This record gives sequence, C-alpha cells and structure tokens, in this order.
Amino acid sequence: MKSLSRNSHNWRRLGWAVKRGETIEQAPASLGSARGSSGLLRDEGKGVRKSQSRIVSRALSVSDAKPVVRQIDSWCGCCSSHQRGYGSAPGDGQVYRDKRYAELKDADIVHFRQILGEKGVVVDRDDLDWANTDWMHKYRGNSQLLLRPQTTQQVSEILQYCHAGRLAVVPQGGNTGLVGGSVPVFDEVILNLGAMNKILSFDEASGILVCEAGCILETLDNYLKSRGHTMPLDLGAKGSCQIGGNVSTNAGGLRLLRYGSLHGNVLGLEVVLADGTVLDLLGTLRKDNTGYDVKQIFIGAEGTLGVVTKVSVLTPPKLASVNVAFLACEDYASCQKTFAEAKQQLGEILSAFEFLDRHSLELVLKHLDGARDPLPDSKESFYLVVETTGSNQTHDKEKLDAFLESALEKELIKDGAVAQDISQAASFWKVREVPGAVYKYDLSLPLKDLYSLVEDMRERLRDSATVIGYGHMGDGNLHLNVVAPSYDDKLVSQIEPYVYERTAAVKGSVSAEHGLGLMKPKAIYYSKPPAAVQVMAGFKDLLDRHGILNPYKPTASVKSTKTFGTPTFDVTICRSDETPLQTKLKVKFEQMPLLV
Amino acid sequence: MKSLSRNSHNWRRLGWAVKRGETIEQAPASLGSARGSSGLLRDEGKGVRKSQSRIVSRALSVSDAKPVVRQIDSWCGCCSSHQRGYGSAPGDGQVYRDKRYAELKDADIVHFRQILGEKGVVVDRDDLDWANTDWMHKYRGNSQLLLRPQTTQQVSEILQYCHAGRLAVVPQGGNTGLVGGSVPVFDEVILNLGAMNKILSFDEASGILVCEAGCILETLDNYLKSRGHTMPLDLGAKGSCQIGGNVSTNAGGLRLLRYGSLHGNVLGLEVVLADGTVLDLLGTLRKDNTGYDVKQIFIGAEGTLGVVTKVSVLTPPKLASVNVAFLACEDYASCQKTFAEAKQQLGEILSAFEFLDRHSLELVLKHLDGARDPLPDSKESFYLVVETTGSNQTHDKEKLDAFLESALEKELIKDGAVAQDISQAASFWKVREVPGAVYKYDLSLPLKDLYSLVEDMRERLRDSATVIGYGHMGDGNLHLNVVAPSYDDKLVSQIEPYVYERTAAVKGSVSAEHGLGLMKPKAIYYSKPPAAVQVMAGFKDLLDRHGILNPYKPTASVKSTKTFGTPTFDVTICRSDETPLQTKLKVKFEQMPLLV
Repeated sequence: MKSLSRNSHNWRRLGWAVKRGETIEQAPASLGSARGSSGLLRDEGKGVRKSQSRIVSRALSVSDAKPVVRQIDSWCGCCSSHQRGYGSAPGDGQVYRDKRYAELKDADIVHFRQILGEKGVVVDRDDLDWANTDWMHKYRGNSQLLLRPQTTQQVSEILQYCHAGRLAVVPQGGNTGLVGGSVPVFDEVILNLGAMNKILSFDEASGILVCEAGCILETLDNYLKSRGHTMPLDLGAKGSCQIGGNVSTNAGGLRLLRYGSLHGNVLGLEVVLADGTVLDLLGTLRKDNTGYDVKQIFIGAEGTLGVVTKVSVLTPPKLASVNVAFLACEDYASCQKTFAEAKQQLGEILSAFEFLDRHSLELVLKHLDGARDPLPDSKESFYLVVETTGSNQTHDKEKLDAFLESALEKELIKDGAVAQDISQAASFWKVREVPGAVYKYDLSLPLKDLYSLVEDMRERLRDSATVIGYGHMGDGNLHLNVVAPSYDDKLVSQIEPYVYERTAAVKGSVSAEHGLGLMKPKAIYYSKPPAAVQVMAGFKDLLDRHGILNPYKPTASVKSTKTFGTPTFDVTICRSDETPLQTKLKVKFEQMPLLV
Repeated sequence: MKSLSRNSHNWRRLGWAVKRGETIEQAPASLGSARGSSGLLRDEGKGVRKSQSRIVSRALSVSDAKPVVRQIDSWCGCCSSHQRGYGSAPGDGQVYRDKRYAELKDADIVHFRQILGEKGVVVDRDDLDWANTDWMHKYRGNSQLLLRPQTTQQVSEILQYCHAGRLAVVPQGGNTGLVGGSVPVFDEVILNLGAMNKILSFDEASGILVCEAGCILETLDNYLKSRGHTMPLDLGAKGSCQIGGNVSTNAGGLRLLRYGSLHGNVLGLEVVLADGTVLDLLGTLRKDNTGYDVKQIFIGAEGTLGVVTKVSVLTPPKLASVNVAFLACEDYASCQKTFAEAKQQLGEILSAFEFLDRHSLELVLKHLDGARDPLPDSKESFYLVVETTGSNQTHDKEKLDAFLESALEKELIKDGAVAQDISQAASFWKVREVPGAVYKYDLSLPLKDLYSLVEDMRERLRDSATVIGYGHMGDGNLHLNVVAPSYDDKLVSQIEPYVYERTAAVKGSVSAEHGLGLMKPKAIYYSKPPAAVQVMAGFKDLLDRHGILNPYKPTASVKSTKTFGTPTFDVTICRSDETPLQTKLKVKFEQMPLLV
C-alpha cells in the first residue's frame, strides 16, 4: 500500500501550483471565467477582431478585421445567382442562392429606417464586414444590410416585413460560433440582437434571471456575481457571446457537467417567429406542465425556427470555494478510472473534468508564449484538469485531498499539482489557439471510445499531420484537432468522412456543442435518423413556411412530408436555382434527403 | 445575539427526532423513497387498488377496484355518441365522442391477436376495469380493449393499424396520473406499456441508463442503488409509476430542486409516432447539437404526440449521507428567508425544501393514524422539511448545524428537529391522503406569491371548507387543497375560475407537475398565450394528423393554422359530433380557441 506521505513529493510548487496540504484561498473564479479574464479568447491579442462591446458602442464603424475566407468557389460581389462551396471535402457542399428570396431594394431600407430609425440600419459595406465574417474567418457572407432592433416589437415588425416580402434573414448574436451559423451565406439581411441588452429582472430568492437576448454572457455573470449567483454555463467566448446565441446554439461549455444543459436551465423564452408573431413563453417557473414545452424546440435550433428575443434562466448560487488540480495519467484507461474515482470521492463538488493528451500539451508549450508545464518532470501521455466548486473551503479541500490520495494509492494518476491561482490553469486551454492549418472536430462519444478515435486518426494520417485530442471528458465531448502545415484537400479526404463514420459507428454525435451551421448540415445523418430529420423539417415548415430564417443551414432544404415512416430517398432538393444539389453533392447516405 | 447553546433546547428527541449535535448515520434513502417504502402511496392499505406489479403478474385479472366515478353527465354503457362532463365548474367541460373515430370491430381484435398473441390482448370487461379507471377514481372510460405489446415493433404495428383505421388510442403506463390523462374518455383502445419493462443498459462510468418505457420507477432506482447511482426523480407513486409515463407527463417530484427537470436529464427517447413510425432518438450523449432536439417535445406531451417506448436517462451518483430537518416558522416570510439561508449555507448539499402549513399538519394529526407531531410544543403557522444529500456525513452534518444555528440566530425558525430515521419524516406527506371531498390544485407560483393564494382562498371560502397549502417550496410548487364535507358545485364555483385567474395574474402555472389531462385542458390559456397553443396544435397536426393519440386531451381540438399571429377567436372546434363545443362551454377567454 502506498501512503500519502510517500507520494507527497509528487505535489510540487511550480509557479502556479502548490504542494498538497496547502490551502487554496479565495480562488477567484471558475476555469471558464479564468480563460476569459486571462485573455485567451481567440480574438484577443491578435488585433483582428473588435469585442462585441466595442461594436455596440461604435455602432458598427469601420472594421479592423482582415478576414481570410477559405472555401469560396465563386464569388462575384453581386448578391444573386451565386455558387459557394463550404464542405471540407473537395467537391462537397455546393450551395446556390435560392432565387425565391427577394433581393434587397431601396424601398426596403426606407421601410426599415421607419421601424428602427437611422442608427438601427447599417448599410455601409465596411461597417458590415465584421458581421459578414465569422469568428474563425472561415465563412464570409455578402449581406448589404444589418439591422439592430432595440425592442421585441421592432424585431416583430422587421420579420413580418421580411416574411411578406421573402427577404432572407440571419439572426446574429455575438457572432462567436464556430460552424458559420451566425453569418450570411449570400445577401441575407443580418438581424443583430446586440442592442437588446437589458437585464429585465432578477429574483434573488429563486435565482431566476430574465434578460434580453443581446446580453453578453460575461456581463450577466458579473451582474449575478455581486448578487450571490452565477450563470449555469461558461464558455471561452463569454466576453463576446450573447445569451440569445447561447440559447439558439444550445451552448455547452465547462459547467455542463455540474449544472446540466440549457434544456434544463432555460425556464422561458420570448421568441419572434418568422411571420412576426411574438411567442411569449417567458415563464419564470421551475415547473410548468401546461401543454407541450414549445420553448425547448428553439434551444439549439440555430435561429432557423424563430428569433430568441428574451431569456429566463435559472442561475445557481455562486459558491465560494473553487479548487483546480492538474494530474498526469499513464494511459487513457487511467483517465477513465480517475473520472470514476472523482465522481465517487468528490461527489457533489465536482464541477469540471477535462483532459488533454501529451501531444496537445507539447504543441502548447512549443508554440504559445507564456505556457508552462506544471509537471515538467512527468512525461505522461495524458493530463487531466479537475475542478471542484463548493460552499466550504475546508470541506472541499478535505474531499480533494482524499480523492488525490486515493487516486495516487490506486496508481490511477502518476503525478499532480494543485492550482494556487486558478487563472493560471487556463494556460492549457491555449491548445485551442495553436497556429497553422487546424481542422477542428467537435464530437460526442461514449467515454470508452473517446480516445481511440484520436489514436486511429493518428495512425491513419501518420506523418502528414499532427493529431491532438482534448476536451470535456466529463461530458464525453472530444475536441479532435488535426494540425497541418497548410490546408490540403488530400488531407481532408483522409479525415472525412472517416471521422464522421467512426463517430456514427459508436452512436456518437458529429456536433457535440457547436451545432451544424453551414459547416456540416448534411452530416446530421451520421447522428440522426431520416425520420427524425423529417420531423425537424416539419417543424421548420410549420414555423417558417417561407424559409426566411437562416437559410442554407440545418433542415432548410429537406421537404416536409408528414410521412415520416416512408422511405425518404425520393425527397427532392427544392431550393437550388440551377442544377439539383443531389448531382453536385458527394453524399454518404445516398438514400437520404439532402441538406445544403 | 443568540448563541447556539442557548437555543439548543429547541432541538429535542421526539420519537423520530434527535437532539442537534447527534449524528444521523446511514439514513436509508431520500424523502420520496421513504414515502414509498412506508406505505404512503394512495393505493396502499385501502384494498381498492392493485399495484402495477401485481397487474403485470396477473395479466389484468378481475379487479378489486370499486371505482367511484364523479362528474359523468350521461353514460350509457355503449361506446358511441356519448356526452361527458369533466370540468369542476357546473356546466363546464362537456365532451362528445368524436364520430370520426372508428368503433372497435371483431376483425380488429383478430388483427391485434396476430400481432401480440392471445396474452397481449385483453377484452374481458372486468379485466379492463382497472385500466379504465384513474388512480383517484375520478375518471372512468369505457374501453373494450387493452393491448400489452412487448416490443417496439409491436407498438409500431398497432399504431400503424389504428392510424389507418382511425381507432383512437390511449397510451398508458402505471396509470398513476392525477388529471385523467392515462384513462380513456370513451372507447379508446388502451395501449398499456407495462410489459415493456426491460433494463437495456447501464454505463457506470457515465451513469447513463437505457430502459424500456414500462419499467417501474422504483425498480429502476433499486437497480441503480446497487450500482452507486440513483434516479434523478422521485415521486410518491414510485412503486407503480413507469418511466415512460414519467417522461410523458414530465413528472417533477422531490429531487427536481437538486437534479433539475427531465428536460435536462432525459438524454434520449425512442418514440413511436401515430402512424407507426419509430423515431430512434435514443442517444446516450450529454451533448448532441445535430439539428433540433426533437425528443424534447415528447417530454410532457401526455402521450398525445407519440408513444414513448424507450428512455435514456442520466443518473446521478448515489450519495451516502442524507439528513432531514423539520422546522417551525412563525410566518411565510420566515419560510422564504429560511430558504434563502438554506441555499446559502447548505449550498451543493441541499436536496429538498418542502413546506406545509399548520392547517395541513393538524388535518394529518387529526385524521391519519400513525402521524405524530415532531414539535408538539410548537404551535407555529408553518413547517419546513429540509433535506440534504451529500457524499460526506461529517461535512454535511457540519453544514446542517451551521445552517440551523444561523437560522435560529436570525430568528428565521422558531423550533426544529432532526430526523433520526428518515422514513419517519414521511408521515407528514400523509397530508395528501386526508379523507373527505378534496379539491386538489397543483400550481406553480413565484415564491413571494405562493402562500397568499392560500390565504385569499381561505378568506374567500370562510367556513364552507378547510383550505390547506403544502408543496415543494424549493420549486415554487404549491399543492392547494380544499377539503369539504362533500363535493358541492356551489363550492366549486367559488374556487374556479378564481384559483386559475389568481395564478395567471402572477404569471404562474395552473399545472405545475401533473399535466392537463382531461381535468383541465382548457385551463391552458391561463398559463400559455393563444399563439403558443396554436404552435402546439401545429405539432399535434404534424405528428398525429388523424388525432388518434389520447384524444379529448391537450390541444386535441384546436385547429392548426400556421397563422400564429392572427386573432384566433375564429378558430372553430372541429371534433364534436353534434353541437359545437363553443356553445356548451363556459369559457373564460371567449376570444380564444377552445379545447375540449
């Protein structure tokens, strides 16, 4: 039997680490907020991106962004009869502008000015650049108009007009999505919710917050902090992303392990439907079984079923004690066992369980300034970041000590350090910012299969790329990154559709927390059966019968039939303006209805 | 400043209570399971009701039940052209059998025997009595056929046949609902899921359980207990209710405060649609953002959109330490403050916060055998039951002590006792079984308004009835009971619609956790706007276009339009066979589309 003392040399002071037994007082925040505050957002320090708050104050003045837009096959500056390619694989994902959508006219702009006034209508092309380009600079639309409503009534009037006139619309929040869901594909009108940023109410007794959709996540969290509560979700993009976008993309993030998904935490929504109908589902009740829970269908619908204008969310109490441990494991099996041990020993205080492999750590140490190895003497294959959050520092420390002791005793972990300053733990998340051509895949997999996909991919690609794996192990969420010297179609064809097929084979999800967006709408069939996609198309048809909301994205081109059980291979693609997409797309499941 | 020691006399040994400072070891289970195991289910000890497990083993042999069915206006034993009254208010809620539904023929029974074999087809009227009558003996249908499928394929074939032949169907689980949702209204075919009761998989690493819909909640909890986990929901009816029914009614219960609703905990569903289509949404992933989260719409749909056949649910670890405190408060304001204090002090270990008023306690003590007052020297107006659940008994005890000390110090509570044997705490839940004519209302209200409704009702009814209030305070869920010597239409007219109007005035819910069922479908408008009900009707029309699933219940009679924003007063009732319902119903909101 190993004893704690005999292993105590494993716990060292490493700048940000303290010896086991030392107390970690007043840890300032959770992992996610630490990432936010320590400048690790993708847009910071690069000078290419304004923060959303600056956007708000500058009312979309000239953008500093110099977007590098990949994967555009033909692009003429004019808005109609375009063809664009978005799939990662060569020849995949051609998209045509749908001629059924009207083109913007001067009269439209006059009308919108009547609704919003001069300031709410942005037409300057330079001003539009930011909103036309996605966060990753991977997708760029060509919208000529951005609208910034300040009230639900204005959103309703805008959509009523667009619905009647068949003007396509892209709802946009903080524009921090990673799959191109928040930017136009062609000339869609951008409906930016950023000016609807008021906190409407907060009830300290119940912890229920009601606010407008354009509130920035970090702003909400700061507001709650002084009132003894915290938001139930936490993301790297918290300084820019908006709660309406979080809801519309069913954002996951770090705290999901502890507080669950937005489907459980969102208590109410106000949504404006495509025809301008205001759906007031803005309840503030934990229990409400009066009819179907309609609001649920808008959570994660990526703005294709309605525009979220207000949100009611249950917020947990802010707990005072936060601890972080950085641990080294010999193999992935040990990581799994350590997770089981953590759940057992840490019980109700476990709040995050993240992992990264050695390759990830090395890339971070090699490429990113300021990243330090907290365990320089350990050369293990896997690293874990375990966070606890509780109400009593002494109790939490005891639980954490018992867990670490037990994990050492059972040889589940080889080494470890406890964070003194929690913000320093964030340096490992710089792995997301490794330079070069990076293909990113956001997958959900059964825990036991989580890492074998990384190993298989590494074996498959051999010397042509570096394959790294990290993610939210507690949620079964793998971020698989393939890092190459440059973007290369041959490399892509080795990755896709293999990565999706492998995921589907173990009933995983090809989009865990990012959504489908424009990047992978047709990949939906790897994770959902055709009958389910038909139901989705039915919802779309019911709620947006002219398809004006966020077109060319999930379910936009599946024809709703109401015959869910019949074979669906004869469903036609109805929204391309020239050649049927079926002939253009390289489709894995040929018998299935296609999505653009 | 009061000190802990000076108040220590408030903590006394009272049979089931121990002095503060004593340790509560090995508390066997949570509040809900204690209720289950101590025989507090409504059907036990009364000799009128078989348990579901007996039903299963006896294959629906002659029922012991002697149902007392109220509120049936005309009832002729034959199945067609009926008229029934279900509303609580006189003249309210007349329902006609819809002639568009076919009547059962011998050929149908022959066909079902081909699908299910002899044992799966129940036609004996005595055998059907149990399934025709609801748990409260308030509603009774007249179905002539009960089907007990054993596989999803059989459910699919049954529904395909019923859909084609326009046979109306009532999906039924444990038949423990309180609003008449699980029994037929007329001659609908009963589709009982009780024979689909297999546990399909459990992954100890993730805590994800996959099982068939007919699994009894307590069976699942017992299965998990030996594997270190527990179900995220707990109900009084756990010994009989089935997980498919729990999902279909979005059951709430005790643990919701801690683990959240089924919208967060259900990870996947297999659902058979009305036309027999099997919708495989049986994922086992915590994160899956591939398209709309279709499964959500079946959670709480009361079996009107599809039949849940399999469930995938996230189960939390079973924590070893459970404590219960019974506290007395002077007024409701103190209850609210004590709740705030509990959230602050107990933080992550708080697992239930329930309340009952003095009137409830007195009724229990007067009428129910075995009920004892844990605080006989206190005659306070309010009592709280506070439960903690955690992984470390010493830590939990310290937190509970600190909370109690603080609550005493601040004079939030006047007296208290800590439960030695947790099952004894359950005696207070006998309040639900108080004899006599009891009108039960299950409401969600903002915390600050929760009890004023009880007081107003008491003032309103004065000597004509006893008004009591209890419920899940932590969830804002009030159970308002009006106890009278006998059922009385005049009394009802004093209660309704007042109780619903008062609830609507503070944006509450007229059905917190029980659903609408047959009891109050038209009351939906008190909690949901017409546009939302129109969307619900659209979902119904999309997924069950012949309306065969659980007819005469939520949204069954609202005509789907797709023009959500237009005034809805011209929507006609289309499913009564004689006089339009509009002329029969006493409707509060005359401009709104009606529901039978």
